[in-house]
Amino acid sequence: MDVPTFDDVRAAHERIGPYIHRTPVLTCTTLDRMSGARLFFKCENFQKVGAFKVRGATNAVYSLSAEEARHGVATHSSGNHAAALARAAGWRGIRCHVVMPENAPKAKQDAVRGYGGEIVYCHASLEAREKTLEQVVRDTGAAFVHPYNDPRVIAGQGTAALELLEEVGELDAVVTPIGGGGLVSGTSITCAAISKGTVVYAAEPKNADDAYRSFRAGRIIPVEDPDTIADGLRTSLGELTFRIVMKHVSEILTVTEAQIVSATRLIWERMKIVVEPSSAVPLAAILACPDMFRDRRVGVILTGGNVDLDRLPWQIPA
Amino acid sequence: MDVPTFDDVRAAHERIGPYIHRTPVLTCTTLDRMSGARLFFKCENFQKVGAFKVRGATNAVYSLSAEEARHGVATHSSGNHAAALARAAGWRGIRCHVVMPENAPKAKQDAVRGYGGEIVYCHASLEAREKTLEQVVRDTGAAFVHPYNDPRVIAGQGTAALELLEEVGELDAVVTPIGGGGLVSGTSITCAAISKGTVVYAAEPKNADDAYRSFRAGRIIPVEDPDTIADGLRTSLGELTFRIVMKHVSEILTVTEAQIVSATRLIWERMKIVVEPSSAVPLAAILACPDMFRDRRVGVILTGGNVDLDRLPWQIPA
Repeated sequence: MDVPTFDDVRAAHERIGPYIHRTPVLTCTTLDRMSGARLFFKCENFQKVGAFKVRGATNAVYSLSAEEARHGVATHSSGNHAAALARAAGWRGIRCHVVMPENAPKAKQDAVRGYGGEIVYCHASLEAREKTLEQVVRDTGAAFVHPYNDPRVIAGQGTAALELLEEVGELDAVVTPIGGGGLVSGTSITCAAISKGTVVYAAEPKNADDAYRSFRAGRIIPVEDPDTIADGLRTSLGELTFRIVMKHVSEILTVTEAQIVSATRLIWERMKIVVEPSSAVPLAAILACPDMFRDRRVGVILTGGNVDLDRLPWQIPA
Repeated sequence: MDVPTFDDVRAAHERIGPYIHRTPVLTCTTLDRMSGARLFFKCENFQKVGAFKVRGATNAVYSLSAEEARHGVATHSSGNHAAALARAAGWRGIRCHVVMPENAPKAKQDAVRGYGGEIVYCHASLEAREKTLEQVVRDTGAAFVHPYNDPRVIAGQGTAALELLEEVGELDAVVTPIGGGGLVSGTSITCAAISKGTVVYAAEPKNADDAYRSFRAGRIIPVEDPDTIADGLRTSLGELTFRIVMKHVSEILTVTEAQIVSATRLIWERMKIVVEPSSAVPLAAILACPDMFRDRRVGVILTGGNVDLDRLPWQIPA
């Protein structure tokens, strides 16, 4: 697979423009004071489907030729990517098959179905998931859209940083969460092309620190048994995203579960917005490393706002 | 007391501009679909101090002459007005005395102190509150700033509608919550001056429906024992706000506690923003009266976002 270029990001932005929101950038005096930095929050929690994932999914769906699209798309995911792909497929009027473990949370299943996606259940193992997906692709001819290890998806995710830089101008740094690495890959491609002075950091839960360990080791070390409240960041880097991260990302910063919960609550309390714990991982990292960001202009991508309102992060026993 | 004019609103906007946020206006496809209307939400939950109240308080504080200001300001309130007045007094560098019942929630006391306000405790009765306030004013020479029955406060609150109309253009209707009536009074003065086609509605909890009953009776009927989760709306109309409401407001719409909780949750879930229950009362009314708003362009003022994150509205036993 080829690493996408900034031209691919530009093309993605054109392609998805009619479907997605150009989300606002918010600032917060209190969080600036607490961090000592000047923070610019790109609010992808306000994005369609409640997450940046719809950028990559929509770019992938609209990159298909008419002939390819005719057979629909397929993916394995029980998170925001599944809902986003179903949403994008619905816009184009094509089918979307989502392979999910039988024990996936009902809210996630409802979201996919609500957008018109079709769920194919499998056992809750990596092997079962991949076998079932292969079978679906064979049976339907659907185009597989990986949640992050796909150049079309990465190019789509890079459009959030493009809008952020267009809106606020030069930044000293951008911090994004890292799970599979699609968002930070797209972000770093955008920054390398149009804002060379911007250092790109990825922030990760210590309890799912495969990116941190892979970055140190120079080879992919998949995460085993990730146990983090940041449910969007439990995945491991892919071959393509690993290459981009090694080339463009300056550092992987890790944070504890307590730091994630506390940063999530700060964003709710001070910015009055609803974000999921994965979104708060960059702020947690910034507050944990004040020397790194003091007096800097720092972009933060708030990745999503899909959270169970009956069970808030700070209401879950550790 | 004189009814403020739209010139007063314009002057207030000039006066408070350097201190307050020009808050964003958000829209939401899902809520538009549910209501059948086109809704424009003015997000005062993002305002300084987390509530529109800072508009009126700041206007009052900066309307004082240097000589008046020298003695500080005073109020009785255990809600957002107290915090807002303390904040505004802090900007001007003057003292702010807040009379509060001894049993006021600790979070409210902390907010006032956090902004530099000085709390004077009293017994939890209307009589004790007024007596204590009189004493404070006598002792300090502070200027009393009523939470709503004050032309400077009303003119300040009218600036939210001014910004809303400037941003989205003509509206068929605007709906605000009504407690003491300061916000809807200011809103209706603004609409009557610059957008005559805009019908102004006030929305109120059935469990604190003094405005509804007063509006029907043509005289002020104070609320007794208001028992509503919309804690910003437990107050009764004042003499001045009553006059303005009778003149400019078209209808008072009332909603149940269940409708308020459900509308609050919808805003959190669908718009991904944190609002307090009082903020959701207008949306609750719009969803309860679909025929009134169908196919209309409707402005909604989301009044504040100060809520206890450990005890969400839908987690409180009825």
